[in-house]
Amino acid sequence: MRIAAWQGKPVTGGLGESLECLDKIATQAKEQGADILVTPEMYLSGYNIGTQAVGEAAHSMAEKGLSALSDLARQNNLCLLVGYPELNDKGQAYNAAALFGRNGDLLSNYRKSHLFGEVDRAQFTAGDSLSPLIELDGWSISLGICYDIEFPEVARSYALAGADLVLVPTANMLPFDGVATRLVPARSEENSLFMVYANYCGNEGDFHYCGLSCICGPDGEDLARAGRGEELIVAELKKDALRSVRENVRYLADRRPGLYSKIQE
Amino acid sequence: MRIAAWQGKPVTGGLGESLECLDKIATQAKEQGADILVTPEMYLSGYNIGTQAVGEAAHSMAEKGLSALSDLARQNNLCLLVGYPELNDKGQAYNAAALFGRNGDLLSNYRKSHLFGEVDRAQFTAGDSLSPLIELDGWSISLGICYDIEFPEVARSYALAGADLVLVPTANMLPFDGVATRLVPARSEENSLFMVYANYCGNEGDFHYCGLSCICGPDGEDLARAGRGEELIVAELKKDALRSVRENVRYLADRRPGLYSKIQE
Repeated sequence: MRIAAWQGKPVTGGLGESLECLDKIATQAKEQGADILVTPEMYLSGYNIGTQAVGEAAHSMAEKGLSALSDLARQNNLCLLVGYPELNDKGQAYNAAALFGRNGDLLSNYRKSHLFGEVDRAQFTAGDSLSPLIELDGWSISLGICYDIEFPEVARSYALAGADLVLVPTANMLPFDGVATRLVPARSEENSLFMVYANYCGNEGDFHYCGLSCICGPDGEDLARAGRGEELIVAELKKDALRSVRENVRYLADRRPGLYSKIQE
Repeated sequence: MRIAAWQGKPVTGGLGESLECLDKIATQAKEQGADILVTPEMYLSGYNIGTQAVGEAAHSMAEKGLSALSDLARQNNLCLLVGYPELNDKGQAYNAAALFGRNGDLLSNYRKSHLFGEVDRAQFTAGDSLSPLIELDGWSISLGICYDIEFPEVARSYALAGADLVLVPTANMLPFDGVATRLVPARSEENSLFMVYANYCGNEGDFHYCGLSCICGPDGEDLARAGRGEELIVAELKKDALRSVRENVRYLADRRPGLYSKIQE
């Protein structure tokens, strides 16, 4: 399984411009042999664009957004994970991400369940479930969005469900480098699974995104790590690495769930 | 609150030699203004010494070990956390750690609840509860031992109970550097609390200890970090740092416990 994660500046010029960008990135990812392309949080509309703009984007993209992404995946013969504002039945927006298969099928749709600060709370409604596990090319895959994965309970829940790989679109800003350099690798190591963390670079409103997107192996080591600027990072994920780590590291088997009652209080 | 963590070679020459070493380290820690001295896992007896030696140590130390540690704390006017083999009523040993106050009072006694591999399982019985929280100089303190803290559920449970500081005697060996450099700092960052991780250096049987003991702040940054050899690391823990991080980082408040049912299954 070959994964590409795009670290780019926010694109806020509307659906047409976003799709054009995505098409270019998809071509690059495909040239590098990627099976899946992961993009930053809310990449289809931009993230820190304000409540009104999010609402408008959710309405306008509800009609054409997902079908355009489906077309893009199929045309590029590439699995595609893209964040977008999902319109709910009350006319509000979820901070969502949709994963499309090579044939354009919608494989999974996840709504961010842990909202971050005022920017998320003003713009979005929280999702009410964690991501389901989907199977792709023999890999069990879950989704998280940005802040979700800073909570160890989320990746742990995915690991307990059997995840091999967690894909995370994000919009992580300064001064929170530690999320990219400590927490994401820790999620990999403590759960013996692969993590892909695709962040923005550049600025958006008063946010200065910290870049540092990464693909981490099940031992917590970086397989690929971006700097602060635009970059497509790519890594080959190997089932052998999963097997080898899981033979030596027994975190899931050695847990003591009976001692963890506080976690659910 | 000033904390010292001793990173030293295992001492396996019996109670007398261990107490002599502890007295020297306590003097050093006291000279550097420490309020608490944290030492490696099973420091009173050595860790990888074999089932028979652990059993013998548990019996011999059951009579004199704890009272000698109490004396040492009182004589040095220093809080002292020392690991030791605690004899249970079936004549088996827990992998335990005892925290003494400056006046020699036993403040807390914790039994390792997550046993690591064959070495732990052969030598020890697992404890059946997480550490209680104790109050010392206005700080809420919990204990973990080595492998315990690699499970995010443990430090999270302590944070939810109100811990400011988690003290961890450990015996972490190569190739598990990542525990010291990724997981321990991640525990601090994801729970907004201080962590103290006191490891061995040198060899013991076929274990090559990796050192890298650390004291981490509530933002996940190192306040002190040892290398690979013998070293007493010291850091000042400030309540202001806790307050400042907790004003800006809302992990505990932003959790979604209703979504974490898998953690207790």
